[in-house]
Amino acid sequence: MAVVLPFDPSADVSAEPSLEGIVSLVRADMERVNTLILSRTGSDVAMIPEVATHLISSGGKRLRPMLTLATADLSGYQGEGDVKLAASVEFMHTATLLHDDVVDDSEMRRGKLAARMLWGNEASVLVGDFLLGQAFRMMIEVGSMHALDILSTAAVVIAEGEVAQLAASKNTATSEDDYLAVIRGKTAELFAAACEVGPVLADRPKVEQSACRSYGMNLGIAFQLIDDALDYGGSQVKLGKNVGDDFREGKITLPVLLAFRRGNEQERNFWRRCLEEGEIKDGDLEHAMELLASHKSLTATVDRAIHYGAMAKDALGLFPDGTAKRALLDTVEFCISRAR
Amino acid sequence: MAVVLPFDPSADVSAEPSLEGIVSLVRADMERVNTLILSRTGSDVAMIPEVATHLISSGGKRLRPMLTLATADLSGYQGEGDVKLAASVEFMHTATLLHDDVVDDSEMRRGKLAARMLWGNEASVLVGDFLLGQAFRMMIEVGSMHALDILSTAAVVIAEGEVAQLAASKNTATSEDDYLAVIRGKTAELFAAACEVGPVLADRPKVEQSACRSYGMNLGIAFQLIDDALDYGGSQVKLGKNVGDDFREGKITLPVLLAFRRGNEQERNFWRRCLEEGEIKDGDLEHAMELLASHKSLTATVDRAIHYGAMAKDALGLFPDGTAKRALLDTVEFCISRAR
Repeated sequence: MAVVLPFDPSADVSAEPSLEGIVSLVRADMERVNTLILSRTGSDVAMIPEVATHLISSGGKRLRPMLTLATADLSGYQGEGDVKLAASVEFMHTATLLHDDVVDDSEMRRGKLAARMLWGNEASVLVGDFLLGQAFRMMIEVGSMHALDILSTAAVVIAEGEVAQLAASKNTATSEDDYLAVIRGKTAELFAAACEVGPVLADRPKVEQSACRSYGMNLGIAFQLIDDALDYGGSQVKLGKNVGDDFREGKITLPVLLAFRRGNEQERNFWRRCLEEGEIKDGDLEHAMELLASHKSLTATVDRAIHYGAMAKDALGLFPDGTAKRALLDTVEFCISRAR
Repeated sequence: MAVVLPFDPSADVSAEPSLEGIVSLVRADMERVNTLILSRTGSDVAMIPEVATHLISSGGKRLRPMLTLATADLSGYQGEGDVKLAASVEFMHTATLLHDDVVDDSEMRRGKLAARMLWGNEASVLVGDFLLGQAFRMMIEVGSMHALDILSTAAVVIAEGEVAQLAASKNTATSEDDYLAVIRGKTAELFAAACEVGPVLADRPKVEQSACRSYGMNLGIAFQLIDDALDYGGSQVKLGKNVGDDFREGKITLPVLLAFRRGNEQERNFWRRCLEEGEIKDGDLEHAMELLASHKSLTATVDRAIHYGAMAKDALGLFPDGTAKRALLDTVEFCISRAR
């Protein structure tokens, strides 16, 4: 007797990975997060909403606040605190971006002029401070000491990671482990905190809090590695819009770090000249891309990201299947698929 | 029959005002604050303690943390929380100084090279962020939601005040009220918060919390006005070390604001050229000092400071006399006497 399988559109594994799952899971709450973000960037000092809105409304995916809402949903949280913590997480992220652009002298951000190009470094530093302060105020309103502890620790670790990156920058001798420590701090820690506060708000057991933290941490590492690969066009080396920004800024990311280690002395001198001494000539970016391709550094970077993505997915193993869990698993797939 | 008055050394009104009272009142606790400050600037990232210690150990008076300890003492507080909040307040202050020096392009701070001259703007921004994060962590450890609310609100108001100053800078049309709003934000708010958390920790009635807040706010305004006068040598116009820094940076402070309003059109054009257009020639500082003297702007600024100092002292009226109260009153006298 034949078994008739019911049609299940979600089982369509041929579909492109997307954020559709998490977006529809948190749609209603994200509207409230967006309203809250708008109201908390308000100030009598007109420059504050101008600078903040320029960046906040520049089309970021708002992945981090969505993660807070989704892990709260996964944990069966029923209260209102997740909306405020999600907005806090986005403010912490925005403050970091404003300060990063100053630290890196960046001219562009998300395809638009960086805030510092329009309002100056001064305003970017101070509006970042304002948003960080507002983030803490919202967290305090939620009233969970445990969530406060997690997010304030994240703020410290992020700043520490940024300083570590500053100290390590332009050093081609950076090891893969050093590099991982930097991206754990500068990117993955906020993903981890954003995911950990969900089960914390819902007062779930420690083991679930750790699981969500681990999911966020590994997703964050994978996300950053893919970003690093995308800066050189993804796993298929290709030139295009914004390709090579990290190269021009002398950033030592994993693709470069691997090509440096896998290359010969002549190639290492090339990387040293371009990245440590900052002497970049016409054709250097193209040559760098050739080296990345010949040493398969971009493919290797994506492979590393797949490894951390797998750890993120396994971290959720103890949660029962359901819409929230599936949305979180799909998010990992989506983040990695960006570089394919 | 003659009345013999007992000899009371504290009644010796001819003595120079000093910080001796508050320093001896909080000496034991300040040692613990200093130890805590050292331990919380520690990090595996060596640049963090280097930058932080450069500024923190550069001989600031640590007035703000002493105010937290003294108002906690005034309120009969017996716990340990005041030491952590005092260290938090100093970290918030240090973070602000690091960011301010970047925003103002300052080369010197407290007679030493500014941190940004030694480690760069990047490190100053990021170590400031680190210290702000550590400040929040210490506050959270204390566990008082009310104190957290006060200090986090202060962080937002300070950043807002700095942005307002940025927007108002180089504008000679700034009114005295606009200027007061700026210094309430950038200086007085932290004094107010530092003083308010003392009675809050001790769970004293609202009226005492407001009184201490009011003391701090008015002391902070007086302190900043005296600083502004000192930048031109104090109430006696005189040239000396660091005199004229605000002038060279185009800062519109109360002495200038008053001279501008009291002057004729020719004088106003002079101020506009120097401060708005930044065209400063040899002899301009001397001419500015002459205008400040002829319009008695420095004396007037000190008079304004005396007014706010009086409000600060009256705010403490409802507290019974005692060592802590006397130390706080002397602190006001000392702050104002700096410009005499």
